[in-house]
Amino acid sequence: MLEKISNTIKFLSADMVQAANSGHPGAPMGLSDVMSVLMKFINHNPKNPNWLNRDRLVFSGGHASALVYSYLYLTGYDLDLDDLKNFRQLHSKTPGHPEITTPGVEIATGPLGQGIANAVGFAMASKTAASMLNTDELKVIDHKVYCFCGDGDLQEGISYEACSLAGRHLLDNLVIIYDSNEITIEGSTNIAWSEDVKARFEAMGFDVARIDGHDYEQIAFALDEAKNKDKPYLIIANTKIGKGALELEGSEKTHGAPLGEDIVKRAKIKAGFDPEVKFFVSEDVLFETRMAVEKGDLAEALWKDSLKNLSSEKKELLKALENPDFSKIEFPDLKGENLATRDSNGKIINAIANAVPGFLGGSADLAPSNKSDLKGLGDFPCGRNIHYGIREHAMAAINNAYARYGLFIPFSATFFVFSDYLKTGARLAALMSLRHYFIFTHDSIGVGEDGPTHQPIEHLSSLRAMPNFYTFRPADGNENVASWKIALNKNAPSAFVLSRQKLKALPKAKFGGVENGAYLIEEKQNASITLVASGSEVQVCLEAAKILSKDNITANVVSAPCFELLCGQDDSYINRLFVGKVLAVEAASALEWYKFADEIYSMKTFGESGAASDLFKHFGFTGENIAKFAKDLL
Amino acid sequence: MLEKISNTIKFLSADMVQAANSGHPGAPMGLSDVMSVLMKFINHNPKNPNWLNRDRLVFSGGHASALVYSYLYLTGYDLDLDDLKNFRQLHSKTPGHPEITTPGVEIATGPLGQGIANAVGFAMASKTAASMLNTDELKVIDHKVYCFCGDGDLQEGISYEACSLAGRHLLDNLVIIYDSNEITIEGSTNIAWSEDVKARFEAMGFDVARIDGHDYEQIAFALDEAKNKDKPYLIIANTKIGKGALELEGSEKTHGAPLGEDIVKRAKIKAGFDPEVKFFVSEDVLFETRMAVEKGDLAEALWKDSLKNLSSEKKELLKALENPDFSKIEFPDLKGENLATRDSNGKIINAIANAVPGFLGGSADLAPSNKSDLKGLGDFPCGRNIHYGIREHAMAAINNAYARYGLFIPFSATFFVFSDYLKTGARLAALMSLRHYFIFTHDSIGVGEDGPTHQPIEHLSSLRAMPNFYTFRPADGNENVASWKIALNKNAPSAFVLSRQKLKALPKAKFGGVENGAYLIEEKQNASITLVASGSEVQVCLEAAKILSKDNITANVVSAPCFELLCGQDDSYINRLFVGKVLAVEAASALEWYKFADEIYSMKTFGESGAASDLFKHFGFTGENIAKFAKDLL
Repeated sequence: MLEKISNTIKFLSADMVQAANSGHPGAPMGLSDVMSVLMKFINHNPKNPNWLNRDRLVFSGGHASALVYSYLYLTGYDLDLDDLKNFRQLHSKTPGHPEITTPGVEIATGPLGQGIANAVGFAMASKTAASMLNTDELKVIDHKVYCFCGDGDLQEGISYEACSLAGRHLLDNLVIIYDSNEITIEGSTNIAWSEDVKARFEAMGFDVARIDGHDYEQIAFALDEAKNKDKPYLIIANTKIGKGALELEGSEKTHGAPLGEDIVKRAKIKAGFDPEVKFFVSEDVLFETRMAVEKGDLAEALWKDSLKNLSSEKKELLKALENPDFSKIEFPDLKGENLATRDSNGKIINAIANAVPGFLGGSADLAPSNKSDLKGLGDFPCGRNIHYGIREHAMAAINNAYARYGLFIPFSATFFVFSDYLKTGARLAALMSLRHYFIFTHDSIGVGEDGPTHQPIEHLSSLRAMPNFYTFRPADGNENVASWKIALNKNAPSAFVLSRQKLKALPKAKFGGVENGAYLIEEKQNASITLVASGSEVQVCLEAAKILSKDNITANVVSAPCFELLCGQDDSYINRLFVGKVLAVEAASALEWYKFADEIYSMKTFGESGAASDLFKHFGFTGENIAKFAKDLL
Repeated sequence: MLEKISNTIKFLSADMVQAANSGHPGAPMGLSDVMSVLMKFINHNPKNPNWLNRDRLVFSGGHASALVYSYLYLTGYDLDLDDLKNFRQLHSKTPGHPEITTPGVEIATGPLGQGIANAVGFAMASKTAASMLNTDELKVIDHKVYCFCGDGDLQEGISYEACSLAGRHLLDNLVIIYDSNEITIEGSTNIAWSEDVKARFEAMGFDVARIDGHDYEQIAFALDEAKNKDKPYLIIANTKIGKGALELEGSEKTHGAPLGEDIVKRAKIKAGFDPEVKFFVSEDVLFETRMAVEKGDLAEALWKDSLKNLSSEKKELLKALENPDFSKIEFPDLKGENLATRDSNGKIINAIANAVPGFLGGSADLAPSNKSDLKGLGDFPCGRNIHYGIREHAMAAINNAYARYGLFIPFSATFFVFSDYLKTGARLAALMSLRHYFIFTHDSIGVGEDGPTHQPIEHLSSLRAMPNFYTFRPADGNENVASWKIALNKNAPSAFVLSRQKLKALPKAKFGGVENGAYLIEEKQNASITLVASGSEVQVCLEAAKILSKDNITANVVSAPCFELLCGQDDSYINRLFVGKVLAVEAASALEWYKFADEIYSMKTFGESGAASDLFKHFGFTGENIAKFAKDLL
């Protein structure tokens, strides 16, 4: 029966790729044997993909999506054979790489290495949840996290970062199955890779097994062993890519292209399948695999029943984790305070954490600089501060998993310039509409002496250009509070881009507010020019307006903490905001400001090393210089 | 004497940080003992920092810049004590993190992990150079590459990627000195790190020594061993951060802030230095360390002398490597050919490689898709194709080192969406004005079935916002050739953003050319609208113009392969180019086009999985839809 299930997966996958004339048959066929055994081990409820205590299964090699959809169909998730036949077609439930719109897909994967870090994140989230909810008598959370990965995933640095942290925390709920087929797109893995993977993972604190990934007994034995680990567990499954694809078996040619009708037919004949029938699933196979439905229903029912024994305190906590109530947050009143926005932000996130038990996170080893410490709330796994180490990329992917887990609202902190290191994680957060917050301090040449390698220039433009992502660059603590209130109510990630240096508190809004993305803080009759800026440059514009008024030039000043929100305003708002010539001022590339501005005053080069005040002067971000530039513009 | 030199380095570093009231004393003081011994081993010529066969020394922890400048000053590079006194001041030779404008700095570092990958790159470049220039009798290239790194460097994924490749290629010229001080900014490394580093590096193919980093004999012994390795070599030096800083020794407080005058004075007293004298270097110390000058001069002279024995063929090759002659390139004539630009690019880079012996590179395991194979030119170390493995980030940093080596012009290839993985490497290439070329294929929703995780949206904006970086997105093979001709003559990195799908060849330019960034390909009298686009959308605009003309609307069409070059044109050119209303069309975020356009037609969301033609239709990038949009705009 296992062989029959395995062959069913193989040919469903091959047929999908043939039908789409596009896709990756090699990995699904190579992994179908492991998958057919793993199915028996996974504790899940296909009729409720959101059951909290389900095992999580992550496919780090997202190109093996035909395997994912075969698995989801066979075990009874809300997918039918027609969905499989529509593989990789526009608006299908079966896109080229797994996306969370498909029931049962835990997390979107595809960019290599992300999935392993997500799996580490799920395992960590599970530990956090267990530390919050479990008692000696009752394990509310005691599931496993399984992850399939390939050579590509293991070569990517992000997977190393995440696994190193998994080893540090002895994540005994994590099982990574490494599809070791010794093939990459350019040929044998040996062209670029000669590691002793077993020894490397052991050095990082894993238990490692090595098995023949086509031997059902070895697979079952290795998976069974996972029950008794006190460490994270790597199963190296030696496999052949495109297993069963006759003369193409073992070849990189099976990786990313259809096998061809001829091979598929001959392979089916060899396996005892009808070569003329596509998308074939025998009744006995379906009966066997769909037992997951009944088993899952029962498992969830028993689990739910056990929750009755939870203390009322824990019940309340679980409710608060599942349905966070932001109305309980007592935001600090920062009106009129001169603070660096990294400092105001530190106060805000502590206020949030005190009211919202699922709010947690940390920094890639810059907590004292990022002001991201949640005071008195302890460290992972028993507390809500997570020390990710100097691993920005893994941090973002781990927190994507926290956000997908069902209970948590995570934040990731680092210097703004190092947002480059975690960009793919931020992008996937946006693609999945996750509430995952990025705290990026040291936001401009205001970084000062650390110099150009540490001074962001293009980063604001880069984030603003990303769909479904909000970038807030508040100009004072008050804007910072307002930004968080907005961000918490978006089904999307947001970044807070914050100053290292102190900023003067802004005057009261004259028209509009942070919720509009930009608003008037200085409004005069018949202004001939509007200066618009974000963050630390707003106070420069206020100074410039003062200087201009001495020359009888009337200038309005607009503070613009969120460009994306501003883009969503209607013409009447925009026309009220921007009067006369419009000059945007930003100590960054700022090109996107041409959408609203006639001219921009921006950074044209990288920064320099020097005192922040010297740099603002050197690069012309002073009231005097902006006033002069504005006059020239008029 | 070693102790005296070491103390001199310590106090120079501490004094620098005190004078700047900013900086990192901890690492320089922790490493001064190793540095004082290493000085005797390094084979370099301070009076000629460009000597080809010098040992390379990379400081991956760029925050230890006070150590770098102490070393450069003591050994006789073009730096004086006043430069040290100006540490971290605007326009000084001693910026907060090492930059290549300072004589003797091999490569800019600071973003953690980059330097290790740079060091691997230097070691690889040295192997490539040796395979080209060395003979059995004469070793033109036989130097070492030394690299200092810290915990942060080793935690970053990029360092793992690079070291894994170093192990694969048994780079016996690479010596990494790991400053293992067990301290990170958030506290003990143990909060996030429990690896057996020795075992991990051995698993990757390194020889590993572990020493007391404050014991001169052990340091010297370990460095001496480096001579006889047949593998890359990691020296784990157990050190104390802030060694010598009295009660602060071993504390994270010494990492990133001045120690304070009091501690510095007391530390000097304890070490037998005058507490009142700053920036003190005794004559005997300077005499000892400056012997590097004479020794280096002699070493280079002997080396130069030995070159006389080179065959004329090798001499020619060396000359061609040092001074590449691009006039010899026989670029393919691709006018009128309908090709995917990834295909035209493949032809072009092969033409370049055939004429320019230092042109080399490869892909992060996507060569068949990126069309980046240099046909018939062999593989590293004996050839010019490099298989980086699935390691985009390391690829970029390795190639930055190739570009800095003095002989090579490297390229890095991957899918455009994965430019996110290597962004910091690209940024550092721009910061250092390196000729390092990025080949980014699969440039838009034209990727098709692989779906939104593989479809770039914000990436064009992100690259265009970066200073000193040129982003070419050619619309056909002819533009692709022109783009390369321009890029090769810039002292800056460039990216080539290329289509997966075939593109129709464009008509002849009517005004301007690729060298202007954008030019007219369809020009009519009294046009009421100008459609401007790049890459695959240019043909969409041409179709739209045709449709509009049926409605008696006259539309010009501008092809814009390089936004950055367009930004450099004067008003008269811009005014000639853009007539009437201007509509920019790009299957990307495209916000920066507001600089020239009244309106943009762009991607507002992530892409989808489906056939490329379906996606272009779905997202409205068709002649019909653009024509309709243009009419509405008018």
